[in-house]
Amino acid sequence: MNNFKQWDGFKGRIWKEEVNTRDFIQHNYEPYEGNQEFLEGPTEATEKLWSALSKLQKEERAKGGVLDMDTEIVSSLTSHGPGYISEELKDLEKVVGLQTDKPLKRAFMPYGGIKMAEDSCTSNGYTPAPELHKIFTEYHKTHNQGVFDAYTPEMKKARHNKIITGLPDTYGRGRIVGDYRRVALYGVDFLMEKKKEDYDNCGCGIMTDEIIRQREEISMQYRALADMKKMAMSYGYDISKPAQNAKEAVQWLYFGYLAAIKTQNGAAMSVGRVGTFLDIYMQRDLENGTLTEKEAQELVDHFIMKLRMVKFARVPSYNQLFSGDPVWATVEVAGMGQDGRSMVTKTDYRILRTLENMGPAPEPNLTVLYSSRLPENFKKYAAFISVETSSIQYENDDVMRPVWGDDYSICCCVSATQTGKEMQFFGARANLAKCLLYAINGGMDEKSRVQVGPEYKPITSDYLEYDELVRKYEIMMDWLAGLYVNTLNLIQYMHDKYYYEAAEMALIDTDVRRTFATGIAGFSHVVDSLSAVKYAKVKVVRDEEGMAVDFETEGDFPRYGNDDDRADDIAVWLLHTFLEKLKKYPTYRNSEPTTSILTITSNVVYGKATGALPDGRKAGEPLSPGANPSYGAEKNGLLASLNSVAKLPYEWALDGISNTQTINPGAIGHSEEERINNLMHILDGYFDQGAHHLNVNVFGIEKLVDAMEHPEKEEYANFTIRVSGYAVKFIDLTREQQLDVIARSAHERI
Amino acid sequence: MNNFKQWDGFKGRIWKEEVNTRDFIQHNYEPYEGNQEFLEGPTEATEKLWSALSKLQKEERAKGGVLDMDTEIVSSLTSHGPGYISEELKDLEKVVGLQTDKPLKRAFMPYGGIKMAEDSCTSNGYTPAPELHKIFTEYHKTHNQGVFDAYTPEMKKARHNKIITGLPDTYGRGRIVGDYRRVALYGVDFLMEKKKEDYDNCGCGIMTDEIIRQREEISMQYRALADMKKMAMSYGYDISKPAQNAKEAVQWLYFGYLAAIKTQNGAAMSVGRVGTFLDIYMQRDLENGTLTEKEAQELVDHFIMKLRMVKFARVPSYNQLFSGDPVWATVEVAGMGQDGRSMVTKTDYRILRTLENMGPAPEPNLTVLYSSRLPENFKKYAAFISVETSSIQYENDDVMRPVWGDDYSICCCVSATQTGKEMQFFGARANLAKCLLYAINGGMDEKSRVQVGPEYKPITSDYLEYDELVRKYEIMMDWLAGLYVNTLNLIQYMHDKYYYEAAEMALIDTDVRRTFATGIAGFSHVVDSLSAVKYAKVKVVRDEEGMAVDFETEGDFPRYGNDDDRADDIAVWLLHTFLEKLKKYPTYRNSEPTTSILTITSNVVYGKATGALPDGRKAGEPLSPGANPSYGAEKNGLLASLNSVAKLPYEWALDGISNTQTINPGAIGHSEEERINNLMHILDGYFDQGAHHLNVNVFGIEKLVDAMEHPEKEEYANFTIRVSGYAVKFIDLTREQQLDVIARSAHERI
Repeated sequence: MNNFKQWDGFKGRIWKEEVNTRDFIQHNYEPYEGNQEFLEGPTEATEKLWSALSKLQKEERAKGGVLDMDTEIVSSLTSHGPGYISEELKDLEKVVGLQTDKPLKRAFMPYGGIKMAEDSCTSNGYTPAPELHKIFTEYHKTHNQGVFDAYTPEMKKARHNKIITGLPDTYGRGRIVGDYRRVALYGVDFLMEKKKEDYDNCGCGIMTDEIIRQREEISMQYRALADMKKMAMSYGYDISKPAQNAKEAVQWLYFGYLAAIKTQNGAAMSVGRVGTFLDIYMQRDLENGTLTEKEAQELVDHFIMKLRMVKFARVPSYNQLFSGDPVWATVEVAGMGQDGRSMVTKTDYRILRTLENMGPAPEPNLTVLYSSRLPENFKKYAAFISVETSSIQYENDDVMRPVWGDDYSICCCVSATQTGKEMQFFGARANLAKCLLYAINGGMDEKSRVQVGPEYKPITSDYLEYDELVRKYEIMMDWLAGLYVNTLNLIQYMHDKYYYEAAEMALIDTDVRRTFATGIAGFSHVVDSLSAVKYAKVKVVRDEEGMAVDFETEGDFPRYGNDDDRADDIAVWLLHTFLEKLKKYPTYRNSEPTTSILTITSNVVYGKATGALPDGRKAGEPLSPGANPSYGAEKNGLLASLNSVAKLPYEWALDGISNTQTINPGAIGHSEEERINNLMHILDGYFDQGAHHLNVNVFGIEKLVDAMEHPEKEEYANFTIRVSGYAVKFIDLTREQQLDVIARSAHERI
Repeated sequence: MNNFKQWDGFKGRIWKEEVNTRDFIQHNYEPYEGNQEFLEGPTEATEKLWSALSKLQKEERAKGGVLDMDTEIVSSLTSHGPGYISEELKDLEKVVGLQTDKPLKRAFMPYGGIKMAEDSCTSNGYTPAPELHKIFTEYHKTHNQGVFDAYTPEMKKARHNKIITGLPDTYGRGRIVGDYRRVALYGVDFLMEKKKEDYDNCGCGIMTDEIIRQREEISMQYRALADMKKMAMSYGYDISKPAQNAKEAVQWLYFGYLAAIKTQNGAAMSVGRVGTFLDIYMQRDLENGTLTEKEAQELVDHFIMKLRMVKFARVPSYNQLFSGDPVWATVEVAGMGQDGRSMVTKTDYRILRTLENMGPAPEPNLTVLYSSRLPENFKKYAAFISVETSSIQYENDDVMRPVWGDDYSICCCVSATQTGKEMQFFGARANLAKCLLYAINGGMDEKSRVQVGPEYKPITSDYLEYDELVRKYEIMMDWLAGLYVNTLNLIQYMHDKYYYEAAEMALIDTDVRRTFATGIAGFSHVVDSLSAVKYAKVKVVRDEEGMAVDFETEGDFPRYGNDDDRADDIAVWLLHTFLEKLKKYPTYRNSEPTTSILTITSNVVYGKATGALPDGRKAGEPLSPGANPSYGAEKNGLLASLNSVAKLPYEWALDGISNTQTINPGAIGHSEEERINNLMHILDGYFDQGAHHLNVNVFGIEKLVDAMEHPEKEEYANFTIRVSGYAVKFIDLTREQQLDVIARSAHERI
């Protein structure tokens, strides 16, 4: 049995014989039931560093959103020497490591697509080195070129007309969470040894394509681990052996994550569920007397500070889709163990505390894995942080645990993934609202007038008839599901071929489970439109070419978001029907198809591309984000809205069901204590019904309007809000998106 | 129906509606039954150019074998401007185009393996640019790195111990013959259009890995065609449209081939079966009065001169294996059509004539597709050329035609492939002689003392017992066949991934047939060893460790090569048994497994790595090449030897059965006419029995000895001999290989 001296005091056996972080955690963590009073404020070092970083962030904003960019160096694990927040303050940094040699300087990452890499430079006023253009066009093909080499004309049309949207075909697919804790627990040498064993055991000798590919991948992982050591060594750390204390544990873990963000520029680059794990090290040091609470908090603050610095070079169209420069450096706290114990530790508190010590911030994307069985004290503290900062989101541990166990991470905004045991093929979303219009218009796109879908018989009657519409919609969804899955198959194939995530996969089991994440956009509008046709009378307005361009609805109809089963049943039907259609198609590497109802801020861009709908939404207006009810549809208050969303079975949307709600502080209480208690009860009630996710904003619309008009006010510099699936500085949103956020319901009553 | 004005006078229809060169040939060629008297000598231009080239070749030899090398430019279709044999004489070149910007300057080709590319420079005193090292290690992975990422330790051991040898894992696999005639017949635009149609029709929409890969490949082919046009344009030719006359036809065709050799450095880069095709253009021009016979011959001479200039940068270990700098620019003449007509045309004569006009030369590897039904005149002329130059080889059209049709090409030394309809996964060979020793020694390598094969029970008796030996041999062959096929699967996978032959595959049907070529080394020694055990008494000589290191044979036994069925039946059994074992394993891309008995000059290197054998061959001595009987085994003259080889069924060795024989001129006649007639009768008799291949050398051993001792003599400058599967300048062989050639039987009697 392996036994490192760095493991002194740690219990358990299986995790010593195989890579098994969960087993280590379960044998060694101590649940914390107490309150937040033990927490410490920022140290002087933290304040100095944060102040230096805040200054850089202001400069970045003043320069239009980008402070500096690499134009000569292709980012890799070993491409850059060490970098610090500030040369003068570098001795204060308890956790070190930057993506490049300078803070907030964005790396050049061409493997996803050289054009994207170059455009991200030029659109920010930088000129990338011409040799790099030659290398990544003439010598080395990129993911993007591979994808476009294989796309069918139908795929290109569907992509161009935005019935399939946000495809990761020009940058990293992201959403793969390495188990970065392994670096701390085992050290890299042990991990390399285990990967070597996997390599030796890979295949029975029959060299099928699958086995050859896997052997090559393990080789690449092995080399990435070796490079990780070199990268850490450039900062003066030898990560070949396990971390021997809390400081090293945080640092080693961060190096693991740094390896990921130096080599991949996925939309979502999550950190994972690290609180309970790190707490074991902190608790040991605290008990040994080698760490104080002040120092423990400082480590967490500095770690989180680093996560607030993660940046990628993006192009304007990307920023339109995912507004506010998010990276989804998602970090989870809390959750319950399979054995019924709470997994809340002091470090979970310490992580939330960073929002007080360094103020609110959109990154890391802090997520509370919620259960009504969590310790009351912790639930209150989380609610307090929500009320104060609107910077955290909640996800239902009670629905995720049965599917993913008690060591999953959130790999994007809301999607769960088993940490170190699973990877996800990210696949953006299909616009089901547009698909409904294709069903009506016989596959002709209502905006471009191009025949995008199959040339089926359109609906020609003056009034929409429910059964006919549903029949035609199902047929059109069949087409869309097939095209969508096949487009993703091709993207994932090329990503593996040209942009494989060696560093992340090196920290994931070789025998990996793969999910195939699809997604739905326009959800509430389809539900309400079908409800309108079913329960009211919908007249089609056609233009001279016979294209349905608008709808006139006579009479009232139930809308999703009011706890009315007539509408909500349609919602459940829609989700289930689309998922079943997706499942019909073979998926890349036999991955398991899942779907989601989440759209990030892309609802605005998607909405622009979508015509008028029978539910009354006009052409070009934003779609409702995620699984949210449509704007103005919620008539019965917050709880009724939550009840509607909670009816969607998580089992049929394992990639996540995102719901974002804004509550006027006055609506949930007259005092802070009342607000905290009420919010906690709302969360208990919502999640006990089996709902999956909730973004909680606690502020009034007037604050948003003021921030939009006066972004220069100091109080708005870090004013963070939750949007669909992530947090963002409100002033970093485009005006269009600010208006969209303002337009959404801010519940005035529960 | 397409109808280009360039096609005026051409008959037929199908070839106008689809890419079908064979159909064009069959409708338009005119068999020629006459003799060689119409042939013309070299023009003044030919003589001047050939003299300039000969001078360069001498300089090349004086410089140790390499005249010049690229160290900065990565070879591609468009990497170099135009190049000519000589700037002063360039207006004399009727066919233009070089691999680089200068004659005999070797291109830098890193995609197969950067180390090989660099070593080929440094071993010749050149220093490759360091940026290229960085690019092809850090940014772009090569075929070689891919292969070594996936090799199992067992594969590496088998490779290192040379039981599997000559694997194409560090350079191009070669052996893919684009239908270069298509460039002339159709022009590139038409070919691009057809590839576009294939792309549009590729797959039903379900994106399996196979379909995705194929779509990407067609895209790459399409781009290669576009680049081919640019390449030709740099020489002032627009190949977008069909060739309009013979000169253009030769030039267009050569540009197609040039595209291949600018992008791939396979061991064998064959040109294909072009004589009958080109004759159609020449005949049209001759009849139109726009071409004279002198001009026709000049075109052929200049075309062949270009093929004599093809060079690749190689490393010393490669040169040891394939001695004399061969490239297998194989060109075929003659053969019979399916309709019974001879396919011999005047241009087939013209091609052979180049060996007179410009003297003998090892390249192109001239191959006569033989049938006893070929016109008597042509058979005589070929025999005359053999007797005079020893520069051509013969392959049996009557056994190949039923398998490959009447438009196959020879893709390497002797292997047939359907032109434009097929590609081959080249896989070098398994050393079956070594395998026999593994059977005796329980998988332990007799040279390295490493356990390479499975640790089966060795033979421990003093005398070898036939049934036991065969049983154990079969078991060991089972292992070897599996390992061999799986090693090749992996190599072919990586070659497709990192070094795909886009330019060659662009000139092959998209719906391509794929063969999986394996090969056998040490054939005759296994046959004779088994015969010794069966018919004599073989005592095992063991060293102190119990390893069988030598054998003492008591009594006489029949040997392969004497037309004795007792030995020859073992030969047939061996071939069939190994093939059946190979066929058990799944092959890459569902390719059809074939095998061959051919070893090129690698028999010397393979022999060095192989211990003593029961047939009396001592440790380290060269193996007999190809399917040749062992040295000294042939006791009954040439015909008996040929009869033994002819018994091997071609159907079980579709990749080829190579046989090389040297005949003392005196043995076949006292006058040239007698020699020609006798050689022709020998060929008729040999091939009518179903034999596959024959290399014919007509000279005595004394000439070889003199050439070895006096390479400086002018008469030996171009002294060409046939070795196993190709022709080589004798003075370019290493002394060791010269001695090996000398040691082989030169038949003194028929």
